[in-house]
Amino acid sequence: MNLKEQIDILLPLKTELYKKDFLLTWEKSESDLRMILGVAQILKDMRNQNISPKVFDSGLAISQFRDNSTRTRFSFSSAANLLGLEIQDLDEGKSQIAHGETVRETANMISFLADFIGIRDDMFLGEGNKYMREVGQALDNGFAEGVLPRRPGIINLQCDIDHPTQSMADLLHLKNEFGSLENLKGKKIVMSWAYSPSYGKPLSVPQGIIGLMSRFGMNIELAYPEGYELIPEVVGLAKKQATISGGSFRISHSMKEAVKDADIVYPKSWAPFHIMQQRTKLLQKNDRAGLDALEKTCLAQNAQHKDWEYNEEKMKLTRNSDALYMHCLPADISGISCTEGEVAGEVFEKYRIKTYLEAGYKPYIIAAMMFTQQFESPLKVLQNILEKKNPRIKY
Amino acid sequence: MNLKEQIDILLPLKTELYKKDFLLTWEKSESDLRMILGVAQILKDMRNQNISPKVFDSGLAISQFRDNSTRTRFSFSSAANLLGLEIQDLDEGKSQIAHGETVRETANMISFLADFIGIRDDMFLGEGNKYMREVGQALDNGFAEGVLPRRPGIINLQCDIDHPTQSMADLLHLKNEFGSLENLKGKKIVMSWAYSPSYGKPLSVPQGIIGLMSRFGMNIELAYPEGYELIPEVVGLAKKQATISGGSFRISHSMKEAVKDADIVYPKSWAPFHIMQQRTKLLQKNDRAGLDALEKTCLAQNAQHKDWEYNEEKMKLTRNSDALYMHCLPADISGISCTEGEVAGEVFEKYRIKTYLEAGYKPYIIAAMMFTQQFESPLKVLQNILEKKNPRIKY
Amino acid sequence: MNLKEQIDILLPLKTELYKKDFLLTWEKSESDLRMILGVAQILKDMRNQNISPKVFDSGLAISQFRDNSTRTRFSFSSAANLLGLEIQDLDEGKSQIAHGETVRETANMISFLADFIGIRDDMFLGEGNKYMREVGQALDNGFAEGVLPRRPGIINLQCDIDHPTQSMADLLHLKNEFGSLENLKGKKIVMSWAYSPSYGKPLSVPQGIIGLMSRFGMNIELAYPEGYELIPEVVGLAKKQATISGGSFRISHSMKEAVKDADIVYPKSWAPFHIMQQRTKLLQKNDRAGLDALEKTCLAQNAQHKDWEYNEEKMKLTRNSDALYMHCLPADISGISCTEGEVAGEVFEKYRIKTYLEAGYKPYIIAAMMFTQQFESPLKVLQNILEKKNPRIKY
Repeated sequence: MNLKEQIDILLPLKTELYKKDFLLTWEKSESDLRMILGVAQILKDMRNQNISPKVFDSGLAISQFRDNSTRTRFSFSSAANLLGLEIQDLDEGKSQIAHGETVRETANMISFLADFIGIRDDMFLGEGNKYMREVGQALDNGFAEGVLPRRPGIINLQCDIDHPTQSMADLLHLKNEFGSLENLKGKKIVMSWAYSPSYGKPLSVPQGIIGLMSRFGMNIELAYPEGYELIPEVVGLAKKQATISGGSFRISHSMKEAVKDADIVYPKSWAPFHIMQQRTKLLQKNDRAGLDALEKTCLAQNAQHKDWEYNEEKMKLTRNSDALYMHCLPADISGISCTEGEVAGEVFEKYRIKTYLEAGYKPYIIAAMMFTQQFESPLKVLQNILEKKNPRIKY
Repeated sequence: MNLKEQIDILLPLKTELYKKDFLLTWEKSESDLRMILGVAQILKDMRNQNISPKVFDSGLAISQFRDNSTRTRFSFSSAANLLGLEIQDLDEGKSQIAHGETVRETANMISFLADFIGIRDDMFLGEGNKYMREVGQALDNGFAEGVLPRRPGIINLQCDIDHPTQSMADLLHLKNEFGSLENLKGKKIVMSWAYSPSYGKPLSVPQGIIGLMSRFGMNIELAYPEGYELIPEVVGLAKKQATISGGSFRISHSMKEAVKDADIVYPKSWAPFHIMQQRTKLLQKNDRAGLDALEKTCLAQNAQHKDWEYNEEKMKLTRNSDALYMHCLPADISGISCTEGEVAGEVFEKYRIKTYLEAGYKPYIIAAMMFTQQFESPLKVLQNILEKKNPRIKY
Repeated sequence: MNLKEQIDILLPLKTELYKKDFLLTWEKSESDLRMILGVAQILKDMRNQNISPKVFDSGLAISQFRDNSTRTRFSFSSAANLLGLEIQDLDEGKSQIAHGETVRETANMISFLADFIGIRDDMFLGEGNKYMREVGQALDNGFAEGVLPRRPGIINLQCDIDHPTQSMADLLHLKNEFGSLENLKGKKIVMSWAYSPSYGKPLSVPQGIIGLMSRFGMNIELAYPEGYELIPEVVGLAKKQATISGGSFRISHSMKEAVKDADIVYPKSWAPFHIMQQRTKLLQKNDRAGLDALEKTCLAQNAQHKDWEYNEEKMKLTRNSDALYMHCLPADISGISCTEGEVAGEVFEKYRIKTYLEAGYKPYIIAAMMFTQQFESPLKVLQNILEKKNPRIKY
């Protein structure tokens, strides 16, 4: 489809993205999600055709990373830059936040000329998403009181509950791999725990996957060793959504059984929900000894599940022995990045390029989230861009 | 007033801002200051009307923060970005400055394509402002010798003596709160020391306030516990300026008495001048034990003045029990950011939004300082911008 | 020459810079090098005439500094900004690279919307240049597989072997000082080791100088105390190139003798090749004790060569007692940045401004490297820029 056709196909969608933060995929309607996928693809294709969708002449996109990040950091930067915004990092080490400033004040102080704030806060269970909403309320208040000329939009770059820029990028990848969202109906996707020599990996990726893919009629199988539960509310939600969308949702405790006839397999380590709760409390108390003890216990427990590696033997059990392997990267690859890990080296290598393609959608998903928050009629703006055809590189 | 009217009203002003660093407000004429206030307001209104005042197609604005900062950092970034410049931070940790490079050399090395350098250097009494002038001389020399194609302008983002971007933002806030600069004549402003559980806060804010507000016919009352003197030269200057401008200047040693019938109250902690001198010497010698001992003594001394809190009781003594409360933020708020502090929680909350508005002028003050240093005829350039009406956001 | 003439003079050059990384000057043809010098000068003159050569409407230029840097960092930032790219620093401290990610993966993950990657990696002998090629292969692969919409170009910002942005800036300086590249034929340039109180300085500057200047018919004299050898392959290459270009190449072990009748003197400390090899092994093993011991030995050895200071006495031996003094900066200046160093204070001061001018070419050399990698017909693009005359600053 050419760009005009891609825009036209989105015209019937009724969305409510305008001036709304993007915090959880399940707060958005299916139309909203389809719009973002569509806009992301259009922005990607425009750039590849040397058409610049720069809609901001100036403005800041603020990033706040409360955890390390390479790929999400660069995705956010790339998205902001594509639309014309300059990235400013709110580095708490450099700022006075560490000195007891309230969130409310800081949120306003940095936002006088800001258009978006991207936040990653995934370390503390029960805190990350709450923090984003707190920032949002501070901005609402600042805008209402005339402090801010506009209300900057917030984009969840990973919290304790969801990782929407990841799951939406994953969904766009699936859409392109299978031809359409409709083609995903009835497909079996396995979100499986996998062994990792490290511990404390956030729950937001598996939760984001089951919370989003359950909207599109897929048969979800969530697999993990007993005791490695996700947040119960998210699992409940995914179950309900799966039923509504005409798919199904099942939990199992064997990777081997789970992957049978799977169309898609997403093997990824995470820490059990109750462990993350304990860990959060210890982190909040800054109890180093407690944290060390917990880590030791957990690693020992993890080590009992080294057979939860996605390897050739398991791959052969999937549909045509060729289920699409997915990962948010970086994966713990046996024999490459660790001795024993989430995935066998040869399986990873087979799908390596596909995981790169998967990751490549994230900048455009973020740009689409910005674009649809910014414009009441994003498609009209895209049409204007298409008409002007302002080149990204001037030859 | 619409934008055209705002520009027209500034036309009669004779200024000498072009190609001059902004280091101290008292080095600038009243016309200079009025021009900056006017241009700042115009840039703010333009942006709010979606008119982009981007005058640079490329160029760097370098920031050098020798002390922590959130709000000034973001203000500088926002200002630079608004005008089209990219921010580059000169982080001495990352650079070779730490390895004994001379100021002269570094100033030139970073400036080949730079338009502005914003410097914050407020830790060492007798050093910050001096350092800025040293950088300025290096740049003068580099430009004269043909090393630099243009002489980057310097903006004082807080030094040991003055904090001009803060005091000018405060003045623009006052202008808008009281309707005009003329309306400030005869108004009583109290710059008062206030108790804080921390110590070593710079003198530049109170000095900046008395050094600037004394230019506009206000009745200045500087209040502090005996022993908490500011730099004598700045106090002398403020006195003289107050007389010339038709206002008055008084020092008192009771917050309670000082705030009587005040129109404006600015309660803010600072360290006594002679302590800052001692501290500077200890810092230069890196005498940790000496610094710890000094801190202990000072905190004990501060603790004798916990009654220097601006609270309801004191507020009731002010004009109509409603003097405008000002602060550069973050304030030490009793019961919120500390147990006992500069201001009572309920008083701060009453004026909280006003302090946010106050802070919101800073990006535009900085942008106006850049703009007036850059253009010999800044108003003509503003007229051009107004004619073109290039949108900040392209719909 | 005006800009049009400068462009026209380059028209006959046949170059192969398009879509090629810039990793070593000796991999480039003489036409390639002349083109880069010419384009750099044109970009510099354009900017000085307020013509903006911004060819990118958006895009990222990624910098990765595996060693401290002020001047190269700012040069890279300035170059990218001039052409319209935003700088994003890949800070390994902040990223997940430290957590075992493979180079291959990271190179792709950061590059979805990147146009250039500038890398400084000069600490480990045998590693830096290799690393850049590894990144390059990862990008080639990502582009071939459709992961990347374009293959970002790589620019060597200093490796273990060469420092091409430095040596090319040095060459442009020489071209301008002596009037033309042709005028360099037969000139004597002395690349001399000099005493420094520190140790472990990289070999890339002296190697870069002899590897580049030997292409232009100069008489190269490489001087160092016995034992302070450079990488033998680079020395061999320089010898061969000198012969081919009609110049000469000589090694001597006395600074005093070397500088006789010199036209240009480049006195600069470096660590001996074999020491750097030992140091690399110790660094890789993170053997702190071994490193300390090695440093001690080396400093003691260095101290035996304090007479390798370039001073007035030696300057008087050069052509007309006025050989052009060069340095990549910062220099170890006796009595200024150290007690005894590479150059006497009065000699440095005499040529200080010239060393600043020398440094000032680097941003434009980097911009020219980007420009010629980007465009198949860079001169045509320059002509377009010249026709449009889009102002850098809008008056």
